[in-house]
Amino acid sequence: MKEKNIRKGRTVPKGRGREKQPLRVMCLGGLAEIGKNMTVLEYGDDIIIIDCGMGFPDDEMPGVDLVIPDISYLVANAHKIRGILITHGHEDHIGAVPYVLQEISVPIYGTRLSLGIIEGKLDENPAPNEPELYTVEAGDVISLGVFKAEFIHVNHSIADACAIAIRTPVGIVYHSGDFKIDVSPLDGQIMDLTRIGELGREGVTLLMCESTNAERSGYTASERTVGSSLERIFAQYEDKRLIIATFSSNIHRVQQIINASARHGRKVAVLGRSMTNVLSAAAELGYMDLPDGVLIDVNNIKRYKPGNVTLITTGSQGEPMSALYRIAFSEHDKVRLQSSDVVVLSSSAIPGNEKLVGRIINALVRAGVKVVNDSVDAVHVSGHACSEEIKLLMALLKPKYFMPIHGEYRHLYANKDIAEFMGIPAENIFISDIGKVLEITKKGAAFAGEVPSGKVLVDGAGVGDIGSVVLRDRRHLAEDGLVVVVVTVDTEGGYILSGPDIVSRGFVYVKESEELMREVKAIAEASVRRLLEKGVNDFAHIRNVIRDDLARYIFRETKRKPMILPMIMDV
Amino acid sequence: MKEKNIRKGRTVPKGRGREKQPLRVMCLGGLAEIGKNMTVLEYGDDIIIIDCGMGFPDDEMPGVDLVIPDISYLVANAHKIRGILITHGHEDHIGAVPYVLQEISVPIYGTRLSLGIIEGKLDENPAPNEPELYTVEAGDVISLGVFKAEFIHVNHSIADACAIAIRTPVGIVYHSGDFKIDVSPLDGQIMDLTRIGELGREGVTLLMCESTNAERSGYTASERTVGSSLERIFAQYEDKRLIIATFSSNIHRVQQIINASARHGRKVAVLGRSMTNVLSAAAELGYMDLPDGVLIDVNNIKRYKPGNVTLITTGSQGEPMSALYRIAFSEHDKVRLQSSDVVVLSSSAIPGNEKLVGRIINALVRAGVKVVNDSVDAVHVSGHACSEEIKLLMALLKPKYFMPIHGEYRHLYANKDIAEFMGIPAENIFISDIGKVLEITKKGAAFAGEVPSGKVLVDGAGVGDIGSVVLRDRRHLAEDGLVVVVVTVDTEGGYILSGPDIVSRGFVYVKESEELMREVKAIAEASVRRLLEKGVNDFAHIRNVIRDDLARYIFRETKRKPMILPMIMDV
Repeated sequence: MKEKNIRKGRTVPKGRGREKQPLRVMCLGGLAEIGKNMTVLEYGDDIIIIDCGMGFPDDEMPGVDLVIPDISYLVANAHKIRGILITHGHEDHIGAVPYVLQEISVPIYGTRLSLGIIEGKLDENPAPNEPELYTVEAGDVISLGVFKAEFIHVNHSIADACAIAIRTPVGIVYHSGDFKIDVSPLDGQIMDLTRIGELGREGVTLLMCESTNAERSGYTASERTVGSSLERIFAQYEDKRLIIATFSSNIHRVQQIINASARHGRKVAVLGRSMTNVLSAAAELGYMDLPDGVLIDVNNIKRYKPGNVTLITTGSQGEPMSALYRIAFSEHDKVRLQSSDVVVLSSSAIPGNEKLVGRIINALVRAGVKVVNDSVDAVHVSGHACSEEIKLLMALLKPKYFMPIHGEYRHLYANKDIAEFMGIPAENIFISDIGKVLEITKKGAAFAGEVPSGKVLVDGAGVGDIGSVVLRDRRHLAEDGLVVVVVTVDTEGGYILSGPDIVSRGFVYVKESEELMREVKAIAEASVRRLLEKGVNDFAHIRNVIRDDLARYIFRETKRKPMILPMIMDV
Repeated sequence: MKEKNIRKGRTVPKGRGREKQPLRVMCLGGLAEIGKNMTVLEYGDDIIIIDCGMGFPDDEMPGVDLVIPDISYLVANAHKIRGILITHGHEDHIGAVPYVLQEISVPIYGTRLSLGIIEGKLDENPAPNEPELYTVEAGDVISLGVFKAEFIHVNHSIADACAIAIRTPVGIVYHSGDFKIDVSPLDGQIMDLTRIGELGREGVTLLMCESTNAERSGYTASERTVGSSLERIFAQYEDKRLIIATFSSNIHRVQQIINASARHGRKVAVLGRSMTNVLSAAAELGYMDLPDGVLIDVNNIKRYKPGNVTLITTGSQGEPMSALYRIAFSEHDKVRLQSSDVVVLSSSAIPGNEKLVGRIINALVRAGVKVVNDSVDAVHVSGHACSEEIKLLMALLKPKYFMPIHGEYRHLYANKDIAEFMGIPAENIFISDIGKVLEITKKGAAFAGEVPSGKVLVDGAGVGDIGSVVLRDRRHLAEDGLVVVVVTVDTEGGYILSGPDIVSRGFVYVKESEELMREVKAIAEASVRRLLEKGVNDFAHIRNVIRDDLARYIFRETKRKPMILPMIMDV
């Protein structure tokens, strides 16, 4: 890696008639979806990108590992790109970096922790060219072509998170990143409302504000409230072993668990690869304060009484094969669940993960374990602003235009309602879509066309090599399985040489369906024989006839529609 | 159908040494799972069954339509079965009736609405023998062998719901069914706490109590609170068309929507097959009070102003192809969404359906529609007892033994905690599993062995013809697709006659992976040729070699593990 430093005061290239050009604002991800956040600002010959995230596949994408934005617009305009600015180190903001760097070489700017996590990813998935990573701190301003980007400290469920205010020729664009306003954060650094207020006084052209919790009224509670709950739990269960699961990236949460453990005379063992990695990276970078001797190796937990041990683990989303999952299902090689254990899920289930989390809870209670989750006590707080916090941000920034980002439609529209409540005229609020371009001049703002955008699916080593046809086939195969029919024919002689052989998978239990399979074979044989005797030697046609004849019979008998795959070999 | 009447006072057959036999209590469904509720009581030569429900498939069961209990124990003991008692007409309590009647002929006892719904099911899926359906009312007692079963009125999210108290030779068993204690129910009939108290005074040996909401503290709100919310919403949106989605079986909810509509001068159109069916059945059976002229045909809604129309629809769980889904996605042929519409989701998402419901909400807000759900206003209440209601039931019944039923482990264990809080000794609380037999005598109670039990999967016309192998294959196919390799050989000559031909589905986009597919073909060809030249003619062996060679190559290249299906034809 190159040495990291901040490039300040880079010369701004002179554009021709710059003032008259529009600023083009587009998102390649993060609209009408959760995750794969990526915002693009373009002015003349300059492009900057804010965040470069991945998303998770939905139920319609079986077998897909992750989803990244379609960046073909960026590849086509690679020469214009001045840099990627990272707001914070969560997967949905940085997860696509290794994939994007395969296609384009572009400098990346982010805070220390964000870049530390990105470096880890690039170690596993190296870029073809030496990546240019530049560390910034909140308060830093970097010049990127016509743009000047200022990083602004915000509170979030990961340390070192920023919003970014970008000075453009048409005014200031404020990108909120993900944020909450925590007036009593663990590190003492409240979101920089003063600087935000100054920007508002100066005048903000466009606010792009995250929408995750826009449907929720009120304020998100401070991270410190979790500390109070932990204190209660540590006191209540002082004789019992505590197993606490949370997000590995929530360094402040992990710090609070460690602090409570130290105060209550407990040693802490850390379980799960990502938890171990993040903890050591965070400690190394100075984001954590580890009291001397508090951490112990998981192999040594047996030396201590249950009341003197805390286990911090991954798996709070019910991920199969996570440390907590393996503990719950007695598959962990080092930790054996005891009925006196208390498991704290310091998290809430991300929508779609409820059943996975439920499965772990069921396994734990079955083992006699006491489970404490956020429905029992305040052991988790969100990292995202609720409506009152969003209102405060809007009140300070007083933006001319507003674009809600980071959310499904329901969240974007809830954020729109908030903006209208705060007095932003409806015609100045833009609910966009991925690829849709908002053009802003000093005179006005309007949507103006689209750039290519979409979901690129990553499956194993393949990036973008599976599309709608492959997914449709996978769903079809999952639904009713398949029936393969193979027959070797002599088209000249007009007779069957061998077969038809029938193989099915995922369709019926064959041993109990021998009659059905015999009939399938007989029908296929009759169809082929009939066509061959007529002199038909168009294999595509023969395959279609087999498919239709079998589909009709199979549906009548079973009310199922397996995929039917006829293959004909000519000798 | 036979004429329905209540068989009262049927002679109790004399058992030999009856007092010394144990009562055997077992569940064939509804433990460690949601749904497919079925409880069996056996004493000597008599068996009665309480409920006969279906369950829904989970993520691990692609393509499965529904799940019913394994009733092989009942089939083997069919001669002992005196009847099936139905607590209420929800799918998870009656859905398996048509399937069970295919295997055994047994009389069914239930309240009018429950049997009305069952009749509808039997019309679609007729039993081989004329079904014996006997209507009972709350308060009725029926003798079934040694058992005397008393139906007791409870409140629930469907009308005509009952608990059942069974007098057995070892004492009274109280089966709660599903219930809540609604002190202001719409029909004025509060759960029969008086009769329950009398049973408690007499002495209850075993309480089997549902556990759905056992994790929730406090009381479930009365159905009437929904009426107040509806009143507010009807007043607030008096000029707008209201589209209200709820469960079709919640007749009281539908009644409240109709009442509010009538009061506010709105006509009501009903959408969705199940909503239409239930409404006409309920009206016919006298469970609904339809003010004259309030119902209109959906074809006539255009004749009225938006503020004079309410649409009641199915789809509150986000079900694809439900009326609400089709309206939301502009696929309904009779209702076109308008941005001034207000959609009320009078329901809450059943765990696992959150994403489906979210998809509909996103589509609705995108169309500019105002969506009111239970996070916005109290437009839904649960039909299940929370912990304080369960405590009240326990306080009245004072049972000697307790078995929590109807729930995942987390719910069963939460119910166990409640029972312990109420003073039932831990050793008298039995957390059971499906198939597990609890034997109760006058002296004590203990688990004693198991009977066959499990999940029977229904897919299309097939009941039980798909098992773990078929499901494993479906999941495998969904994950990475398949590669079929066909080759025709002459084993005597030791050479390939035709092929290998390669076909893949759900694996990669073939047009972009030509090189990969060519290499797959070359490897398969080399493997077969090598073996044939060695004189190998064991096809199973050849297939294994092809599979291994290709799996290795494909994983190295793609990091995927498609199903590989080699087929060899000999001419």
